[in-house]
Amino acid sequence: MAKTKQKKPQRPKAAPPRGFRDYFGPEVIHRQEMLRTITGIYHQYGFDPLESSAVETVEALGKFLPDVDRPNEGVFAWQDDDESWMALRYDLTAPLARVYAQHRNDLPTPYRRYAVGPVWRNEKPGPGRFRQFYQCDADTVGTPTVAADAEICAMLADVLEGVGIQRGDYIVRVNNRKVLNGVMEVAGLSGEDKAVERGIVLRAIDKLDRLGQDGVRALLGEGRKDASGDYTKGASLGASQIDVIMEFIKIGEHVQIGQQLTKIDGAEFSPLTGLPKTKPLVSGPSPSSYAVKALYNLVGTTAVGRDGVNELTEIADQMENAGYRSNRIIIDPSVVRGLGYYTGPVYEAELTFEVLDEKGRPRQFGSVAGGGRYDDLVKRFTGQEVPATGVSIGVDRLLAALDNRLTRADEVAGPVIVTVMDRDRMADYQSMVAELRNAGIRAEVYLGNPKNFGNQLKYADTRNAPVAIIEGAQEKENGIVQIKDLALGARLAKEITSNEEWKQNAAQFEVSRADLVSEVRELLARAK
Amino acid sequence: MAKTKQKKPQRPKAAPPRGFRDYFGPEVIHRQEMLRTITGIYHQYGFDPLESSAVETVEALGKFLPDVDRPNEGVFAWQDDDESWMALRYDLTAPLARVYAQHRNDLPTPYRRYAVGPVWRNEKPGPGRFRQFYQCDADTVGTPTVAADAEICAMLADVLEGVGIQRGDYIVRVNNRKVLNGVMEVAGLSGEDKAVERGIVLRAIDKLDRLGQDGVRALLGEGRKDASGDYTKGASLGASQIDVIMEFIKIGEHVQIGQQLTKIDGAEFSPLTGLPKTKPLVSGPSPSSYAVKALYNLVGTTAVGRDGVNELTEIADQMENAGYRSNRIIIDPSVVRGLGYYTGPVYEAELTFEVLDEKGRPRQFGSVAGGGRYDDLVKRFTGQEVPATGVSIGVDRLLAALDNRLTRADEVAGPVIVTVMDRDRMADYQSMVAELRNAGIRAEVYLGNPKNFGNQLKYADTRNAPVAIIEGAQEKENGIVQIKDLALGARLAKEITSNEEWKQNAAQFEVSRADLVSEVRELLARAK
Repeated sequence: MAKTKQKKPQRPKAAPPRGFRDYFGPEVIHRQEMLRTITGIYHQYGFDPLESSAVETVEALGKFLPDVDRPNEGVFAWQDDDESWMALRYDLTAPLARVYAQHRNDLPTPYRRYAVGPVWRNEKPGPGRFRQFYQCDADTVGTPTVAADAEICAMLADVLEGVGIQRGDYIVRVNNRKVLNGVMEVAGLSGEDKAVERGIVLRAIDKLDRLGQDGVRALLGEGRKDASGDYTKGASLGASQIDVIMEFIKIGEHVQIGQQLTKIDGAEFSPLTGLPKTKPLVSGPSPSSYAVKALYNLVGTTAVGRDGVNELTEIADQMENAGYRSNRIIIDPSVVRGLGYYTGPVYEAELTFEVLDEKGRPRQFGSVAGGGRYDDLVKRFTGQEVPATGVSIGVDRLLAALDNRLTRADEVAGPVIVTVMDRDRMADYQSMVAELRNAGIRAEVYLGNPKNFGNQLKYADTRNAPVAIIEGAQEKENGIVQIKDLALGARLAKEITSNEEWKQNAAQFEVSRADLVSEVRELLARAK
Repeated sequence: MAKTKQKKPQRPKAAPPRGFRDYFGPEVIHRQEMLRTITGIYHQYGFDPLESSAVETVEALGKFLPDVDRPNEGVFAWQDDDESWMALRYDLTAPLARVYAQHRNDLPTPYRRYAVGPVWRNEKPGPGRFRQFYQCDADTVGTPTVAADAEICAMLADVLEGVGIQRGDYIVRVNNRKVLNGVMEVAGLSGEDKAVERGIVLRAIDKLDRLGQDGVRALLGEGRKDASGDYTKGASLGASQIDVIMEFIKIGEHVQIGQQLTKIDGAEFSPLTGLPKTKPLVSGPSPSSYAVKALYNLVGTTAVGRDGVNELTEIADQMENAGYRSNRIIIDPSVVRGLGYYTGPVYEAELTFEVLDEKGRPRQFGSVAGGGRYDDLVKRFTGQEVPATGVSIGVDRLLAALDNRLTRADEVAGPVIVTVMDRDRMADYQSMVAELRNAGIRAEVYLGNPKNFGNQLKYADTRNAPVAIIEGAQEKENGIVQIKDLALGARLAKEITSNEEWKQNAAQFEVSRADLVSEVRELLARAK
């Protein structure tokens, strides 16, 4: 403020704050439709909606942003007039913790809840990174059974198919924090004093895609020099320790290859069981059963590892039984994202079809949802441990995926436009739109300056209107109206023929005023 | 902060900030359903959705809260890291102004838009007054024609009937700021120097309901002493000035009596024209046509008054033509709320059925929506005048009215509960719920500790479950399942008979495992 030189007040800038944006027409409608589908499936699974306030006390939110180590950043916060601090929620899990702690005596146990809404992050905005975005979460609070995790994985698969992702174009990967803990123990990396090494190992595993096995191996050992010459110091593990980690990585790679093989393109599936009606191309154990066996061999000697593998086995069994085969939900130890945060099973939904990145190279679309088990949800508030598991869907990423994948047959239909030929007869035109709407047809009367008829048709064009209605004095006298088929008109206009007059006429015809509604309805039905 | 004595960190309080609240299950679902209905009707009328960001720059919001004269209060505001101020929107109109100014070249003219979402007010919370609440607005930007106002009034009537308010239980009242300006001019109260008197007059008119004609007359003259002895200074108008204002008031009262008479209880209406199929009880001119004639007699000598009456006449004609008669939309000069803010037509939707107030006295439910024409929407940003008109529906008040009015046949259905008799066969139970869901039946498996079967039934009860499914080892062996009709069970439990065993059995029966889905479906259909 002090730096500005301006003396008199200027006009305000017509723009949202940095990192915020607006959503128009079809963007809003497509998101609403998608959220309606998702919450409909959540509802089918017995989840109840919860809408908490957008604003929370800073003390209730606690340490912000699970992944990030900045206790006082990341949120938009301000002081109330009693000097207490309040902030916009940064996710839907922290409010769930507060609500559950507050109302736990009135809520069922276990409590299945879903929540949809914007969350806010006080972060540096960037291209495609906004400071307000939607989340759509489902969590089960108050039960330790992995049946709750399995249920959410199944629901996630149903959600993806429900919104229009084809089977084979997605995969829900399931891993378990306890298995990783077992791996660390076998590799001699448990204990407080090994936290630094564990961190390096986790980050190295996470880079497998980019660096390959040799790159990861280098990071587990002394370190690695990249193409630009930069050197990253490694974990300095011994050869046998490295072998354990690499064995774990190889199991993951093996599973991913197995999953590719079980991906059956064009196969028909039974809607009831989810089983392919055609014979699978690959026989032998499923990737999931391979994974649990191989993991058991690796970490079965540790209590925590055994526990983790047993949980994964239970999940795999339940999924198999409920008809969710390895082409939908898979046990996959290569999932490491979020393993630091969660306490048991973790799961991630990936879209496996290819899109072109900003440089035009094909890559998998990637993750659209993730979650897992976190058992200290309300401890901060009550001192009690309450087990919980849940998933968060990245609404905007999933929408982007659908835009990429679907040729939307259901483009948002523009309204029928009743044009105004005689501004004194606005009441007549109002009656027409009322009749059309009463028949369930989206319709509006032209409300701009009616003087220039060309402008009315231009307006109809910007509105993506399928039909325009015209009733001048002559038509009124004769008890008729003109119906202009704008969609047909647009098609004809593109055709190569010089008979402009014919084109004009072909797309316009007159009907009795009494038949207005039925004729328009028929025309719209034909256009579909 | 400085005043607190606490030394070590305590547990955070599990509560939202003052004036905020959470919404659970049915509350969320009923609001969503209502908003879906409302936006569906907005869509039918050709309105497009706009979702602007919840956060705006303080300069874009400008002077806060149209009705309130507190330029720096009323909003939640904070500084961004570049020191610019941002704030939560306090309504949906200010963001519309910013968006329209920013995108006006890409938007159709006129631009019909609707918006739904929470808004935030930094005000003292009170009983039933929250600092976050929903609004649901529709506005038409860029056209001066009163056909736009008429259209929004018709849409408002359709919305009220759409969400379940019966015809006859609501009325949309229409007035015009210009008529009031005409009244002031006739009474010799126009001009800058009469602003104080005009303020007193407006407030006096607004108190008609409470004070009656004599009370208002006193306030127009020297002043009035109320029952407690408090004295309110009046406008000190002369006798002929008072007569003009009182004449205006009487027209309003006359219209309201007329409206009561045209309210036809139990009459059938044509869905197409909105006209009653039975003969109206009252003949003669409608209250609206009486109003425009009487108002013309009162203010027709002034240019602005004549203009206002002509606009009201146009609106009345168009409404009559489109089938919205005086039992739905009425020209009513007694509407004064918001007249200070708007520039042309103003409209208000009232629910006319009676409810009991907090002291148990019957009163009309009152206003649930209001709006009008405001012609300086984007001037702050661009310098151009852009005419606009729009309505805002008080979502929470309308929901409260529906809760009051409807016996909800559509209580949110609880899920079918599949109980867990044998925790090792969780996969079997998962298959059951998957089958039920695939058949479109909301269903969940019990995920709490299954040891105590009574707890499972208690859980089913809190979940409002209609049916519980039981499959123990014996049933499994015999290929059957038990279906427990919980709704019937609850009814039988209330009956006075000591045959407890019979009651138990009557509400439970066994079916073949293969028939699970069809039997449950049949049971649920019967229960409806």
